[in-house]
Amino acid sequence: MGKERPPSAEDALIARYFKPLATDPGALGLDDDAAVLKAQGADIVVTTDAVVEGVHFLSSDPPDTIARKALRVNLSDLAAKGAIPAGFVMTLALRSVDDPWLTAFARGLGEDAKAFDCPLLGGDTVSTPGPLTVSITAFGRVPSGKMVHRGGARPGDRILVTGTIGDAALGLQLLKGGAVARALSQDTAAQEMLVARYRIPQPRNALAEALRNHASAAIDVSDGLAGDLAKLCAASGVSALIDAPSIPKSGPAAALLGGGVATVEMLISGGDDYEILCTVAETNCPSLAADAGRAGVALTSIGTVIGGTLAPRFLDAQGSEIALEDLSYSHF
Amino acid sequence: MGKERPPSAEDALIARYFKPLATDPGALGLDDDAAVLKAQGADIVVTTDAVVEGVHFLSSDPPDTIARKALRVNLSDLAAKGAIPAGFVMTLALRSVDDPWLTAFARGLGEDAKAFDCPLLGGDTVSTPGPLTVSITAFGRVPSGKMVHRGGARPGDRILVTGTIGDAALGLQLLKGGAVARALSQDTAAQEMLVARYRIPQPRNALAEALRNHASAAIDVSDGLAGDLAKLCAASGVSALIDAPSIPKSGPAAALLGGGVATVEMLISGGDDYEILCTVAETNCPSLAADAGRAGVALTSIGTVIGGTLAPRFLDAQGSEIALEDLSYSHF
Repeated sequence: MGKERPPSAEDALIARYFKPLATDPGALGLDDDAAVLKAQGADIVVTTDAVVEGVHFLSSDPPDTIARKALRVNLSDLAAKGAIPAGFVMTLALRSVDDPWLTAFARGLGEDAKAFDCPLLGGDTVSTPGPLTVSITAFGRVPSGKMVHRGGARPGDRILVTGTIGDAALGLQLLKGGAVARALSQDTAAQEMLVARYRIPQPRNALAEALRNHASAAIDVSDGLAGDLAKLCAASGVSALIDAPSIPKSGPAAALLGGGVATVEMLISGGDDYEILCTVAETNCPSLAADAGRAGVALTSIGTVIGGTLAPRFLDAQGSEIALEDLSYSHF
Repeated sequence: MGKERPPSAEDALIARYFKPLATDPGALGLDDDAAVLKAQGADIVVTTDAVVEGVHFLSSDPPDTIARKALRVNLSDLAAKGAIPAGFVMTLALRSVDDPWLTAFARGLGEDAKAFDCPLLGGDTVSTPGPLTVSITAFGRVPSGKMVHRGGARPGDRILVTGTIGDAALGLQLLKGGAVARALSQDTAAQEMLVARYRIPQPRNALAEALRNHASAAIDVSDGLAGDLAKLCAASGVSALIDAPSIPKSGPAAALLGGGVATVEMLISGGDDYEILCTVAETNCPSLAADAGRAGVALTSIGTVIGGTLAPRFLDAQGSEIALEDLSYSHF
């Protein structure tokens, strides 16, 4: 009398690993061609970032951290724009179906989706003979017209950055062996901290509303502080003076810098920080600092916006300009 | 006195090829971390589909058709959901920067974005050692609560499909050589038509509003008519009887079928049609037919929704069930 419908392997994969994550009504249980996103009177902020095996993460990275990083690099963009997460869609390009790998990947993704209140709304799973690639498009909401742009910095604004800079770049160096690994061979705690900073960004979504209320411009630091500052300045038509000793560093980063293993250039051009760089009018600094304190996000003043179109300059403790070769990481 | 900012190769690529396409104010000239999408009081419909070299398109396909296909497979989803295109973001994973290739790709993408009024809002460009991959997330608008779902089909509804079915699958067969290529070796016009159907889908966005007004359920036919009908039936909790001779076929497809070169199964399980399959209450059929006529979209009744949970059955001219092996293409 005919047969029951056999689900395809692709449908079975989605049902098993990702349907449990699609808790938002707009996801329609991943059973439709599309998802529904309610704007709720807000502007929708859209950001898209892909991570590629061997380029943005290592084949040996634990699968749950790959999922977390893929989502968090997008959450970091939403935070910098002052947006509250609303959900995401994901394209997963896989070479094969590896159940233990997918189980761990889906667990990490689900935990982060819940922690950041950013539910899975839909996606596409494709087969590739190439490297594993996770492409995520994330959505946030901001009150109409209130997205924080890159282009709002004005001469005289102070330049601030969250957290610490350079740890992720050092974590990657460590995983690759070499001088950083040798210098930290006896310090397991420092090793773990730096590797965690590379594998699992800590996006500053807790600061989103404060940025919207007080910042003149913001960008998330993904390609290195120097390069992303240059982008913010270019978009704003300004330049900047940075006091390099003020750039916030973790204990291990400061020790590696002091010991000559790391250089300022490594810290500010390495990328993968996923901190927020913002500019703030002097009069708004106390309010932003107070909000950051309440949100539990460290925020450090590192310099000043100035007029002009020169590349931002980084000054050492003597006020001399630090020569920089590569301003940021480029994929090509 | 310092240096002018050197744009990275990645920024230069985006500026050269894609900034000219970012005409919507919400794209912010691709100069920010994110785009702004205005809901304008509507629900935002979100769909995401990736195309992978060697899987969804051939390395030898012209680059402008790769771009068009990548966008159009998403436009087809928006059409099936009754949504009006609002824009898209794209992640492009490239092995290298090939200027002639990118020039043609961006031209095809720009022409289609304009033709379908679906502007580029943002994206990410990443380097990969693997196959070229284009992952697009597209957005549409529908009046609140009015998206057309897969799950609304009811017993007694008629089942209709746009355009013709199976041409793209035959076009792919032709490109791969073999029996289809031999049978059409003297018929250049048929060859060109079938290959064009594979390379450049014709999404039925002109029918979106009519579907919203009259259809009980809809899905775009991307994985084969049989498989996508099974998905619609599963989501609706119904089954279906299809009159196979009624399935609309192009002249070349009908000739290949008549000559024994193609089978019904090839036509309905081959995929890549990007037509719309919808179900409509009998009383709404005349209105939908009239709207389709005005929109210039061919629409053919091919069967009836029935109760039950059996897989949809395809009947031949004698009313006997056609045995089907693989209901649809799966990537795994």
